[in-house]
Amino acid sequence: MKILVLGGDGYLGWPTALHLSEVGHHVAVLDNFARRGYDFEMGVDSLVPIETLQSRIRVWHELTGHELEYYIGDLTDADFTHHVVGEFRPDTIVHFAEQRAAPYSMADRKHAVYTQVNNVVGTMNVLYAIAEIDPEIHLVKLGTMGAYGEPNIDIEEGWLEIEHKGRKDRVLFPKRPGSFYHLSKVHDSHNIEFACRIWGIRATDLNQGIVYGQQTPETARDDRLATRYDYDAVFGTVLNRFVIQSVLGEPLTIYGSGTQVRGIIEIRDTVRCLELACENRAERGEFRVFNQMTQSLSITQMAETIAKVSPEKVTIEHLANPRVEEEGHHYNVVHSGLVELGLDPHLLSDTLIESLFEITKRFAHRVRPEAMIPTIDWRRAANTIGL
Amino acid sequence: MKILVLGGDGYLGWPTALHLSEVGHHVAVLDNFARRGYDFEMGVDSLVPIETLQSRIRVWHELTGHELEYYIGDLTDADFTHHVVGEFRPDTIVHFAEQRAAPYSMADRKHAVYTQVNNVVGTMNVLYAIAEIDPEIHLVKLGTMGAYGEPNIDIEEGWLEIEHKGRKDRVLFPKRPGSFYHLSKVHDSHNIEFACRIWGIRATDLNQGIVYGQQTPETARDDRLATRYDYDAVFGTVLNRFVIQSVLGEPLTIYGSGTQVRGIIEIRDTVRCLELACENRAERGEFRVFNQMTQSLSITQMAETIAKVSPEKVTIEHLANPRVEEEGHHYNVVHSGLVELGLDPHLLSDTLIESLFEITKRFAHRVRPEAMIPTIDWRRAANTIGL
Repeated sequence: MKILVLGGDGYLGWPTALHLSEVGHHVAVLDNFARRGYDFEMGVDSLVPIETLQSRIRVWHELTGHELEYYIGDLTDADFTHHVVGEFRPDTIVHFAEQRAAPYSMADRKHAVYTQVNNVVGTMNVLYAIAEIDPEIHLVKLGTMGAYGEPNIDIEEGWLEIEHKGRKDRVLFPKRPGSFYHLSKVHDSHNIEFACRIWGIRATDLNQGIVYGQQTPETARDDRLATRYDYDAVFGTVLNRFVIQSVLGEPLTIYGSGTQVRGIIEIRDTVRCLELACENRAERGEFRVFNQMTQSLSITQMAETIAKVSPEKVTIEHLANPRVEEEGHHYNVVHSGLVELGLDPHLLSDTLIESLFEITKRFAHRVRPEAMIPTIDWRRAANTIGL
Repeated sequence: MKILVLGGDGYLGWPTALHLSEVGHHVAVLDNFARRGYDFEMGVDSLVPIETLQSRIRVWHELTGHELEYYIGDLTDADFTHHVVGEFRPDTIVHFAEQRAAPYSMADRKHAVYTQVNNVVGTMNVLYAIAEIDPEIHLVKLGTMGAYGEPNIDIEEGWLEIEHKGRKDRVLFPKRPGSFYHLSKVHDSHNIEFACRIWGIRATDLNQGIVYGQQTPETARDDRLATRYDYDAVFGTVLNRFVIQSVLGEPLTIYGSGTQVRGIIEIRDTVRCLELACENRAERGEFRVFNQMTQSLSITQMAETIAKVSPEKVTIEHLANPRVEEEGHHYNVVHSGLVELGLDPHLLSDTLIESLFEITKRFAHRVRPEAMIPTIDWRRAANTIGL
C-alpha cells in the first residue's frame, strides 16, 4: 500500500513512517519542520538528539534497504499539498501534521490563531486534494481524546446513539474541549465528517490519548533513527516529564489536585494502531472514529507509578493548576474499536518505564530544568512562551 | 448603552445599527465592505440600490439627529480589532461580520478556506480583544439554524440535557451542518463557549433562521437608508428570491422535492431580537443560545404562499438539488427564549409579502435573471462562481 505520512518528521510521525515501511508499505513523508521551529522559538530542545530528516532516511535505507520518499513543504500551501497528493498518489494519507500542544495554543492570541489556522486549513487542503484527485484515498487523521473534555456520561467512539423526547438519532459525540488546540481538532472532525458526507471520502479519526515512551523496535535500531523526546512544559507530556523529573531528583509536579483522569497509550501501540487503521480501510463516505488509548489513569496514579519504579527517592509537588479544567470528574471511555482490529495493548508497567529511565539517564545532562516550569496560564489572554 | 455593530454595512447589520440607534443606544458600526466586494466578484448587485456607508450615516444624522460612529477595517487584522474595541469601549458587541452564504463557501477550496479563516479568525480576534480589554463586554454573535442540520430529534436552544447509560449531562447540542460556511459557525460557537469558560466572558449566540423582507421602520424613512436586497443564487435567500421570480413572471425554482423544512424570520423581528439580546445581558461566563426564528415552513409551503399572494399567475419548477441535504426529515425547533424576553413575532402573511412585492416591482428593471440559476454543486470540489 502507498502511504503518505504528513508530519512524518515529528515525535510520532517518524516512528509511524518507519513502522509502516518495516511492515512492507511504500511510504513517503511530508513535513515543514514546524515542530523543530517551535524549539527554536522557545529555546528548548528534544532530550534525545535527533538527526535531520534526510539523514534519518539515509540511515533507514542503509540498515533495511527500504526507501522513504520525502516532501518538504507546508499543508497550508494548497498548491503544494495538491501537487504532493497528485504526484505520490497514495492509497492512504496518515495526517499527524498539526500543532499539537495545548499550552502552545494558549500562550496568546497569535499562538491560538496560528494553531487553528494551521491545523484547520492544512486539513481542508488535504480534503480538497483527496476530493479533486481521488476520493478513494483513505484519510487517517490524528485527533485527541482531549476533544471530548470530561463529560458526565461515558465517552463513546466518536458517535453517540441519543434518545430525546421519545425520538432517536445517531450524532457526533458532543465535545467540550479544553484549549484552542483541542478546539482545532474538533473543527477538523466536523469538517472531515462533512467531506465524507458530500464527497463520499473515507476517513478515520483517531482520538489519541496522551502518548508516553520514546522507542519503537524500528527507532531503537540505531541512535540516528531516534525520535524526539520532549520534556518542556509546553510540548512535554505528563508521563515523560515525570520520568525526567524523577531521574533529575526533582519533585514530580502535578497541576492541581491530580485527580484529573486521562487516557494514555504507549508509543509502540500508537504505531501499531496506525498500521491497523491503514490496513482496515473506512468505507466510502464513512467517518469512522476510534479512541486510540489503552487505559485511563489519574495524574496522581501516573506519578505514583513512576515513584514506585524509580531507583531514587521521589517526592510529589502540587502546583496551582494553570489550566481551566475539572479536577473531579467521571471518566469512562469506550476504546474497543482498535482492539477488535487486532491491537494487543502494552499497559503501563515497570518494564516499560525502566526503558524510559535508561534513555533519560543517558541524556540527563541535556535537561534544562527551568523549561519544565509551566508559564502559560489558561486564565490569562497573554503569556510568555519559552525561556 | 454603547453598542459596536460588526458588519454594520450589511443586509442585517445596517438595519440593526439603525434600530439600536433609534431606541436610544450609542452605536458605532464597523465594516470592511467584504459584502460589497463579493458583488464585484460575481458581477451582480443588490436589487435595491444602496448608498455608501458614509452617506447612509449622514442621512441618518440629518433625519434623526442621531450620530453613528464608524470604523473601516477587517476583524482578521487583530491590531485593528483591538484598537477599535479599546477606543470605542462598547458595553455590547453585535457581531454580524462574517461571510454568510453557504453556496459562496462551497464554490471551491479557496472560497471554503476563505470563509472559515475569515469567520473563525475574526471571531477569535474579537474574543481576545474582549478578554484583554474588558471581559464585562457582552458579545452578541450571529449564528445560523443551519448549524444544527436536520437531526431526527427536536432541536433545543443550543444546549441539550442528555441521558446515556444511566448518567446525565448538559452538553452543546450536537451539530451536523450542511456547508463549509455553516461549519464556520459551528467552529465559532465552540470557540466562544470555551472563551466563556476560561475567561468568564458573557456571550449570546443567535442561531438565526432564513431572513426575509427588506424594510424596517428605520430604513423605510428614506430611500438612502435602504438595506441591500439580494436575489442571486449565491447570496439571495429563498423567500426573497421567490418574490422576485414571481414579479418577473419566472417560475419559482425549488431545489429538489421542496419538502425540506427551514426556520424563517422577518427582518423586523431580526432587529427586535438583537435589541432584546443586547438589553438582556448574558451572565459572566454564560454561553447563552437562542434560536432566532419565528416559524418553520417547507420550501414548497413558502413557494405556495408566494403563489397565492402574487397578482400574476405563478408556476413552480423543481431543479435538481445542488446541495447535499436530507429532503424528508423531522424538524421541530424550540425557539421560546427570545419570546420570553419580549419578542412579538411577525408571521409570514399576505401583508408582509405585499410590501416586498412593491419594492421588487419598483426595481425589477435591475434584475439579471441569469444570476438566479444555481451554479454551485455541493458534490463538486470546484465550481464557477458568478456570471
